[in-house]
Amino acid sequence: MELFNRYCFIGCEKSFEESEIIIFGAPFDGTCSFRPGSRFAPNKIRIDSYGLETYSPYLDRDLEDRKIHDAGDIDLIFGNKYAVMDTIKEYAQHVVKHQKKPLMIGGEHLVSLPVISAVFEEHPDLVVLHFDAHTDLRGDYMGEELSHATVIKQVWDFLGDGRIYQFGIRSGLKEEFYWAEKEGHTFMNKYGYDKLDEVVQKIKDKPVYVTIDLDILDPSIFPGTGTPEPGGISFTDMLDILQKLDSLNIVGADVVELAPDYDPTGVSTAVASKIIRELMLIL
Amino acid sequence: MELFNRYCFIGCEKSFEESEIIIFGAPFDGTCSFRPGSRFAPNKIRIDSYGLETYSPYLDRDLEDRKIHDAGDIDLIFGNKYAVMDTIKEYAQHVVKHQKKPLMIGGEHLVSLPVISAVFEEHPDLVVLHFDAHTDLRGDYMGEELSHATVIKQVWDFLGDGRIYQFGIRSGLKEEFYWAEKEGHTFMNKYGYDKLDEVVQKIKDKPVYVTIDLDILDPSIFPGTGTPEPGGISFTDMLDILQKLDSLNIVGADVVELAPDYDPTGVSTAVASKIIRELMLIL
Amino acid sequence: MELFNRYCFIGCEKSFEESEIIIFGAPFDGTCSFRPGSRFAPNKIRIDSYGLETYSPYLDRDLEDRKIHDAGDIDLIFGNKYAVMDTIKEYAQHVVKHQKKPLMIGGEHLVSLPVISAVFEEHPDLVVLHFDAHTDLRGDYMGEELSHATVIKQVWDFLGDGRIYQFGIRSGLKEEFYWAEKEGHTFMNKYGYDKLDEVVQKIKDKPVYVTIDLDILDPSIFPGTGTPEPGGISFTDMLDILQKLDSLNIVGADVVELAPDYDPTGVSTAVASKIIRELMLIL
Amino acid sequence: MELFNRYCFIGCEKSFEESEIIIFGAPFDGTCSFRPGSRFAPNKIRIDSYGLETYSPYLDRDLEDRKIHDAGDIDLIFGNKYAVMDTIKEYAQHVVKHQKKPLMIGGEHLVSLPVISAVFEEHPDLVVLHFDAHTDLRGDYMGEELSHATVIKQVWDFLGDGRIYQFGIRSGLKEEFYWAEKEGHTFMNKYGYDKLDEVVQKIKDKPVYVTIDLDILDPSIFPGTGTPEPGGISFTDMLDILQKLDSLNIVGADVVELAPDYDPTGVSTAVASKIIRELMLIL
Amino acid sequence: MELFNRYCFIGCEKSFEESEIIIFGAPFDGTCSFRPGSRFAPNKIRIDSYGLETYSPYLDRDLEDRKIHDAGDIDLIFGNKYAVMDTIKEYAQHVVKHQKKPLMIGGEHLVSLPVISAVFEEHPDLVVLHFDAHTDLRGDYMGEELSHATVIKQVWDFLGDGRIYQFGIRSGLKEEFYWAEKEGHTFMNKYGYDKLDEVVQKIKDKPVYVTIDLDILDPSIFPGTGTPEPGGISFTDMLDILQKLDSLNIVGADVVELAPDYDPTGVSTAVASKIIRELMLIL
Amino acid sequence: MELFNRYCFIGCEKSFEESEIIIFGAPFDGTCSFRPGSRFAPNKIRIDSYGLETYSPYLDRDLEDRKIHDAGDIDLIFGNKYAVMDTIKEYAQHVVKHQKKPLMIGGEHLVSLPVISAVFEEHPDLVVLHFDAHTDLRGDYMGEELSHATVIKQVWDFLGDGRIYQFGIRSGLKEEFYWAEKEGHTFMNKYGYDKLDEVVQKIKDKPVYVTIDLDILDPSIFPGTGTPEPGGISFTDMLDILQKLDSLNIVGADVVELAPDYDPTGVSTAVASKIIRELMLIL
Repeated sequence: MELFNRYCFIGCEKSFEESEIIIFGAPFDGTCSFRPGSRFAPNKIRIDSYGLETYSPYLDRDLEDRKIHDAGDIDLIFGNKYAVMDTIKEYAQHVVKHQKKPLMIGGEHLVSLPVISAVFEEHPDLVVLHFDAHTDLRGDYMGEELSHATVIKQVWDFLGDGRIYQFGIRSGLKEEFYWAEKEGHTFMNKYGYDKLDEVVQKIKDKPVYVTIDLDILDPSIFPGTGTPEPGGISFTDMLDILQKLDSLNIVGADVVELAPDYDPTGVSTAVASKIIRELMLIL
Repeated sequence: MELFNRYCFIGCEKSFEESEIIIFGAPFDGTCSFRPGSRFAPNKIRIDSYGLETYSPYLDRDLEDRKIHDAGDIDLIFGNKYAVMDTIKEYAQHVVKHQKKPLMIGGEHLVSLPVISAVFEEHPDLVVLHFDAHTDLRGDYMGEELSHATVIKQVWDFLGDGRIYQFGIRSGLKEEFYWAEKEGHTFMNKYGYDKLDEVVQKIKDKPVYVTIDLDILDPSIFPGTGTPEPGGISFTDMLDILQKLDSLNIVGADVVELAPDYDPTGVSTAVASKIIRELMLIL
Repeated sequence: MELFNRYCFIGCEKSFEESEIIIFGAPFDGTCSFRPGSRFAPNKIRIDSYGLETYSPYLDRDLEDRKIHDAGDIDLIFGNKYAVMDTIKEYAQHVVKHQKKPLMIGGEHLVSLPVISAVFEEHPDLVVLHFDAHTDLRGDYMGEELSHATVIKQVWDFLGDGRIYQFGIRSGLKEEFYWAEKEGHTFMNKYGYDKLDEVVQKIKDKPVYVTIDLDILDPSIFPGTGTPEPGGISFTDMLDILQKLDSLNIVGADVVELAPDYDPTGVSTAVASKIIRELMLIL
Repeated sequence: MELFNRYCFIGCEKSFEESEIIIFGAPFDGTCSFRPGSRFAPNKIRIDSYGLETYSPYLDRDLEDRKIHDAGDIDLIFGNKYAVMDTIKEYAQHVVKHQKKPLMIGGEHLVSLPVISAVFEEHPDLVVLHFDAHTDLRGDYMGEELSHATVIKQVWDFLGDGRIYQFGIRSGLKEEFYWAEKEGHTFMNKYGYDKLDEVVQKIKDKPVYVTIDLDILDPSIFPGTGTPEPGGISFTDMLDILQKLDSLNIVGADVVELAPDYDPTGVSTAVASKIIRELMLIL
Repeated sequence: MELFNRYCFIGCEKSFEESEIIIFGAPFDGTCSFRPGSRFAPNKIRIDSYGLETYSPYLDRDLEDRKIHDAGDIDLIFGNKYAVMDTIKEYAQHVVKHQKKPLMIGGEHLVSLPVISAVFEEHPDLVVLHFDAHTDLRGDYMGEELSHATVIKQVWDFLGDGRIYQFGIRSGLKEEFYWAEKEGHTFMNKYGYDKLDEVVQKIKDKPVYVTIDLDILDPSIFPGTGTPEPGGISFTDMLDILQKLDSLNIVGADVVELAPDYDPTGVSTAVASKIIRELMLIL
Repeated sequence: MELFNRYCFIGCEKSFEESEIIIFGAPFDGTCSFRPGSRFAPNKIRIDSYGLETYSPYLDRDLEDRKIHDAGDIDLIFGNKYAVMDTIKEYAQHVVKHQKKPLMIGGEHLVSLPVISAVFEEHPDLVVLHFDAHTDLRGDYMGEELSHATVIKQVWDFLGDGRIYQFGIRSGLKEEFYWAEKEGHTFMNKYGYDKLDEVVQKIKDKPVYVTIDLDILDPSIFPGTGTPEPGGISFTDMLDILQKLDSLNIVGADVVELAPDYDPTGVSTAVASKIIRELMLIL
């Protein structure tokens, strides 16, 4: 007599072997400088995903028809970010080497670095689409090169110019904006995503990694995050973005920076869950 | 020497006998499958209604000029939904038979069923306008025919095809969408209300019942509900809807699914209160 | 490469077959008349149990040395309490028939009824120890015989006089106190547990079922419950109680009425988790 | 067909005329210097009183057997404390002149002043029992003589030496403690109430007013107050106090300083409600 | 060895003498009739301003390049609004007489009155731009002339017709709307700011005072306020407004009615902080 | 014209040079494994200390009569615990070398290590009194030697046997209890402090460092902490402890592990503030 356990994301009960997408959590927020708590995101997302339906009327597709395995969370050690980076990378390599697509739930944005790095090893012509309120392009943060505020700069270190596309950006140091825009190291679409169509057209033959810092959303619909930045996009905008990405060859993705305890209404978790559902349906 | 009691909705102090509209609460949430608490809505709405003005600048009308009686709450028994249905229906019949219009505050959506049923007995050519995020068209929910997830299907059982108009719908089983859209059992305007004008035109000679599940609103403005569904309409959209309904012959209405404890800011209750004020001013 | 999942109570990873204790959740709160939400208890307890150690310095015992299986939650239908009772009883019978001890996490107190009933079938000379703030001895509650407020009366219906021992009771109808005390149908130790030693002595040769409504605790240490009753016992008192029970032949137990969302500090869940750990170590 | 309204304190539905006790609210917190919100206490207490039983097992008495009228709240103007004092005094005089006992629910502690003043007019040999964490004996607070921090000093201004008995005091200026203790203007029992028995004995032939600032309770059981002071008495201590007062000739009373929004668990309101119930049963 | 203290608004560390803008707090909420707590705004804004960057990508300007002094908070006495008005006015005069621009953080809206009055003394042809959800045009509020609900009427008393421009207004008494609109005492742009361009054009040669009641924003993005009014403008609208004001000769400003404790997500404070940053960059 | 700033602990406005006690914050929680947020403690304690009086009736002493400097917070880098340790140690050495006593406010317990280390350099015969719910004696935590769970073991590494006295301990690994108790490396008083008198007698001629992990308190009075452990001591117990320590030669102290955001009532911060006041009055 089998009981019921809601311990994987809704509709992701397939085994590792038979699945094409592997969803896993990286509950680390150790370099967070303002409000911590994104460590609690993966578990909260799984439990609240049962408030969702598996069917998306937007895409007319159903999770039940997909092959997805929820692998659980990586066990991470707070206080040693280098060990954390290594552990995540090791698991991401495991996924990639089995020809499966990693979909990571953060944690803070720094956890994207080892996954992008692992995917890059398999796809050397990788292009990164970066959705975020913040530039994340600092060279260092208070002397530290590994930080949520430097993560995209760290990715640029191995990808180089012309491979990173940033959308929704509305906060950063003057130097970061100038480095990206004036010097042209990344493509930056400030505030929104009005240039996404042309970018999609341009990269349509490349392997693409999508990293979504959920604080790209306006805090009216997504207050549960470390550094809320008013002036963001709406949830409907995000649905629109995901539909535009549907034609791309996405080989990996992540969704980061939900800090659920800062939103007692639970809406931020519902938003994250629905974005993850839609993202799985276009992967 | 008379003291002050804020125990009815603001501006609704008329007696039952002299009133045209009877507002009452049905604080039941017993079939709620995710987050309960809509039982607390009627009392919270009454108390917080004193943060409102009785005057609506949108309509240039004032509650003080209307004849409305706040009858209080029906006393309901948790754990026996059949008895709950009977008790609500009995009170709704009492209102309808006195040629007054019922305006019920839920509670979960299932409480609409007995009120619509009582109004239908008086108005056999009744048409239902259904504003909601969810289809609510399941045949059963885990084997139970009476549920918040089946309520509109239950209404269809006695109204039949062509009498139910659904707006704002963005979540449900694939089967529910197909049943409504492909098979045409209800008129479904997904996501928004762009077809409301033509529907109003079509039903302008019919008696109309308006059931508003407040989760049609985006959770950015209405987080305090059992199952928040990002991607909804704005409060301004809702004002627009109510103004479009002004020309109709509305014979009954309800406003359901506020779960106030999930929104510690109190905004969800303020939203519900203002919608109820506007609704009373067009009834 | 195996990831980490915190989806059973800490230290309860053994299989059903090899275990002596089966812990399972019954997330039902459908007859709750005041504040619902005990449905969320089992999952929250599991997740927060990882803030505990498996070792108890009080008992100098360790969960790692016990054979315990966490079976997950029973899938229950809100709005039909009769079906809920049947489903729980069926699972409890399954546990009892395999010669294992059930340890249920509620849910509201009504869920104890089917478990006690199933255990009684196996142990006809069963004695019940009832720890609670409330009498729970009503004949009916608003006409309904099955309710959190009637559950011990329902148990009395099949156990009869002299088999139920109540501790910590401090709230109820005058009639309930008189029925228990004046008429002697149950043994009632009001407010505290000063007569527990003599009761333990008296029942030491009987099979015992222990039902703990956590609201026996003072709301200072356990605010997260449906009906908080100031004037209860302390957590240290509860540890003392559990040590006194260590010598008994306990054949089944439950811990009910945690409503975790009412306590944003998480302390109520920590209290419940630690009580469950200690209870498992004396079973 | 009558519906149900929970708009008076449970068991206080008698009319003004037939009642011996008049309970009313004074929702003013305008001189509060730290955390406001006691204005919300009376309404919250009424609604949550329905989580109580009308029967007290401690006293073996039932509210149903008493004659009590809940008169509602006095309508007060924020920003003009002089007008507030006048309005409250006027209503208290109205109660006293009808030979009924006033039981006021605050609001901040300053609202006790006009009620004590009105009762004193009727009972010139009045004695005041003051239960509080704070001395409330300042001559002025930032230049203002009317303040929650000066209220007992204001009462002393018309009562004089030897008429005020203070219990539970654990916070104040050095000057206040010295004024009370060294100069002997009031009787002060610091931290607890170990001298209450002798005081009761001493004043047993006098008319007594009881003013309870709920922050005398330890914030573990009563966090919902403007200035929480750890180190207070327990709820059981408070029950003990009330039983000791049972033999006195109490002619008026108040219960102040619940600020319910600071306690999301609702326990502080439950505590206040139960104290009010017990207090009504000994009046 | 100097430690770090986050006790002024980010980027406002200049001395009083060298600065052009003086930012200060007026933590008073004593006439608030619904939900108090705006007293807590200035401190919360300062602390959370460290989640901001000093650089505005919208304006391509940086606070580091401006001369701004954060003077701290004025020490105010609750319960005596007349003394409060005097104290604020005295400090505002001090600022104005040193040829510096005051930027006050409230507190409730009444605190704007003494600052506007002080600025008016220096600039007799002053024009006031008023952004708010509420008319604030009552002659009195429950008999009191000084109130958050009368503040703009009080300003009109010395400015007279044609000098006050109101935007975003969506709540008030019928009489207030008629007084403003029909009788033309103020210029009122209901609901939004579509006529702001023409107003800016018209007053471009006048000294301008800008008073921003943050409840002009929709409560979806700004729930932390005393009287939330659904149907307001977005944060992006507010940025647009501030950019339109950039060409004006602003001689003083204030930002009022953040009640931070009503928004546990902290978003309302982040919104206020960012608006203050942008406002300082256009002053 | 000077305004008011509440940016140091109440009564600690003296300069560094003239002071005997230096209070400073170390807002680091980077190795916290369960619930982070102790980084927010120092600022919250300062602001809420204004709800306290400077006078202690327990000790009949006043902060106004002491020489104490509040130095602010050390600026720490999240994600590099080694740099954090160095920065704190450097500041503690600065304090100690000026013959002043450090009083640090954490942050998590790991921040005690560098302060004790700096004090030990000045006082080689240092004795440590450790008040805590947890043993904190692990050799490593998931492979890391520097952690909140290993901090007292780290202190033992340089102090050795017979120099550490632990009180209130009620949670840890079996191995930790055995290492301390059976092998005698530390003196451990489990659950309470009944052996404190004899310890005070024994160490009365030694320089003493007092480290208080506030989770020694029962979570009923102190819920705002990372890992709440029911079964702790009361606030009155803590006052009693501090009075017993009054005769000792305390050369440094810290108070750690307040995580204020987990306690929306603010009581935990009030408790921490009052303990710090009493501690300063006995230093």
